[in-house]
Amino acid sequence: MFATDLNRMDEKIKAFSKFGELDGGGITRLSLSAPALAARAEFKRRAEALGMTVESDDIGNIYATYPGTEEGLPRIIMGSHMDSVRSGGNYDGIYGVLSSLEAAETVIKEGIKLRHPITVMVWTNEEGARFEPAMMSSGIVMKKWTKESMLAVSETGGKVTFGEALEASGWVGDESNRLNDRDYCAYFEPHIEQGPVLEEEGLDIGVVAGVVGMVNYDIILEGVSSHAGTTPQSYRKDALRAASKVILDLWDSLGAIADDLVFTTGEITCRPNIHTVVPNYVKFSLDARHRDMGVIAEVVDVIKSLPSEVYGCKLSYEEHWGRNTIEFDDRLLDHVEGAAKGLGYSYKRMYSGAGHDAQYVSELLPSVMIFIPSVGGLSHTVVEYSTPEQCHHGANVLLNALIEADKSF
Amino acid sequence: MFATDLNRMDEKIKAFSKFGELDGGGITRLSLSAPALAARAEFKRRAEALGMTVESDDIGNIYATYPGTEEGLPRIIMGSHMDSVRSGGNYDGIYGVLSSLEAAETVIKEGIKLRHPITVMVWTNEEGARFEPAMMSSGIVMKKWTKESMLAVSETGGKVTFGEALEASGWVGDESNRLNDRDYCAYFEPHIEQGPVLEEEGLDIGVVAGVVGMVNYDIILEGVSSHAGTTPQSYRKDALRAASKVILDLWDSLGAIADDLVFTTGEITCRPNIHTVVPNYVKFSLDARHRDMGVIAEVVDVIKSLPSEVYGCKLSYEEHWGRNTIEFDDRLLDHVEGAAKGLGYSYKRMYSGAGHDAQYVSELLPSVMIFIPSVGGLSHTVVEYSTPEQCHHGANVLLNALIEADKSF
Repeated sequence: MFATDLNRMDEKIKAFSKFGELDGGGITRLSLSAPALAARAEFKRRAEALGMTVESDDIGNIYATYPGTEEGLPRIIMGSHMDSVRSGGNYDGIYGVLSSLEAAETVIKEGIKLRHPITVMVWTNEEGARFEPAMMSSGIVMKKWTKESMLAVSETGGKVTFGEALEASGWVGDESNRLNDRDYCAYFEPHIEQGPVLEEEGLDIGVVAGVVGMVNYDIILEGVSSHAGTTPQSYRKDALRAASKVILDLWDSLGAIADDLVFTTGEITCRPNIHTVVPNYVKFSLDARHRDMGVIAEVVDVIKSLPSEVYGCKLSYEEHWGRNTIEFDDRLLDHVEGAAKGLGYSYKRMYSGAGHDAQYVSELLPSVMIFIPSVGGLSHTVVEYSTPEQCHHGANVLLNALIEADKSF
Repeated sequence: MFATDLNRMDEKIKAFSKFGELDGGGITRLSLSAPALAARAEFKRRAEALGMTVESDDIGNIYATYPGTEEGLPRIIMGSHMDSVRSGGNYDGIYGVLSSLEAAETVIKEGIKLRHPITVMVWTNEEGARFEPAMMSSGIVMKKWTKESMLAVSETGGKVTFGEALEASGWVGDESNRLNDRDYCAYFEPHIEQGPVLEEEGLDIGVVAGVVGMVNYDIILEGVSSHAGTTPQSYRKDALRAASKVILDLWDSLGAIADDLVFTTGEITCRPNIHTVVPNYVKFSLDARHRDMGVIAEVVDVIKSLPSEVYGCKLSYEEHWGRNTIEFDDRLLDHVEGAAKGLGYSYKRMYSGAGHDAQYVSELLPSVMIFIPSVGGLSHTVVEYSTPEQCHHGANVLLNALIEADKSF
């Protein structure tokens, strides 16, 4: 088995944690912001110092490539994103880029001969924190939406469009450089788990078999607003009381479907939201995710079976976006699992509950993800953390799986 | 028994509904706004036309007085406010002023001899919709807060202070004109019920025995935010789930205390309030009101007995303002009840759940309120309505109670 360098991996994490750093830890490194551009420049400097060729496509995605030993073979690509949410951490996204860079650095510096060229990739605007939606560029490449519509998106809370920010970044390259299935043959995306499972189960590595399917709904309760002091309880049609009942009932009914179904009521709107007025309108979100689309269908059945009236309030729902479960590539999964096993790391096959660029790429290329533990299961927060050893383990698995993929593809 | 004029009463309501009228009905007549000043000018014009003397005090409260037959007797005063909430109705407040003006007009035009002078009053800024708090001027007169602090209050969502608006209104009079217990001996405030009880019970008149006591709390649930897709349900500390449980439990436990206890959870804040993130913080308001302070004490006991942890979330609470139950004057209550009975109207003694200027005045002078039904129990809305007959009934009760008070005070 081959190994990357623990200290070098750790240095990379610490060095990139400076770009957008916040007092008290963590970063705000919104897509194409000044700190994000500084991180890109540093990535380019380091890749070129390793002898890699750095290119970008027309959406600013970066590709740093090192040649292989056999002429004409497609590239194996690995990477993730470098942008963060507001008050985010030093691992989400950037860990995938830096562990890929560390794997490439090991290949190059140790003279490991690979048949295929290898490419370390940086996706533009994965988080969607500055320009919605999330996974914007992989979505453009995979034609989930048009480039034109995305260029016109204005930043949240501001006026700059994605197109303007992209143009100003200096990273607009040629459209022909976009990830494609002629020049590339396999995609790896290392990432922090962003959840507690690996840590709770004492495991080193998540061999990510896919991304779970999901549905999103808004559930709406409509009652009658009336005066807090003059309306007897029995006359009330209180939308917040009704929403509370539905939320608890959903915990019961969805909780009974499957142990590993996850569902979330994260957002609530209450009107008029005045302490002396009985609420007449409450809307809350329901997000449910599971790898088995049959389970998701049961969730939909539960929603469709909700009563039309709760405590005198009319119940309705609106379906929003959803996605089917994405299954990653079996051969790459075997390579990742084989690498973890060969290195003596504990691991499990698992599904990602969160969305990642890999889910779009998997429609184009054989793809796989590698998870490392998130301390406390925390992510999208300044205290997001994975230990240097955990980061090193993930890079080692990537390196060895890459070497196996180089043989099999 | 004496009677006011139904058509004249109705004309008053219709005439004043023009000041601040909205397309589709209702009004926005914020305190000291242009439409509120137009309504004041019209009130003054009408009072002076009846031979009344119009004065104002240093907070712009208006007093229109007609002399009595006996020298040196204090005045009997009746009235309410003319300002409205945003998108309010044509009855809340203004009905009390106009029914008082109608009673005075009847006394004057029919030559009913009263020993005491009678005064029709208009309070400045009862609603607090433009300048917080509600019942601002009666609170100044009753020294609930200082005039200086109130003059400095800026309008909600704007920069004009109450002091500036007052100065610009042209209604600043002498401080010695303020309501006091030397020049005045009794206070009547007619008002719409703003609740459904009179209508539901088919009654004409509410003989208002007081204003219920109340407590206000914020209840706070603190959990842990985590990713909607990556956090198994069993690991979650979901503050919105916990808040839903507490809201329903409060309905059970508070509902068991007394049938006529009213309590409201009208306002909710959820953080981070993102559909893909488990909420880590939810705060909601609890407003509870009852005439028996012993019942209110039981409410407080329930709050203090809430568990310190719900679904893994820490529960805490903050007590905000409260008030003790206000009891109105027995003699005036008897006069109002006697008038309703004598006129053949159905009535009940009841408590006001909402706050009114009368609750402050009652600390200074013998006071009472008269309620008429609100159609549908609705108030603070453009569809607020009481029929011309209901408005007439209230004015008749006021007139006859006034005549009795003139004898007994």
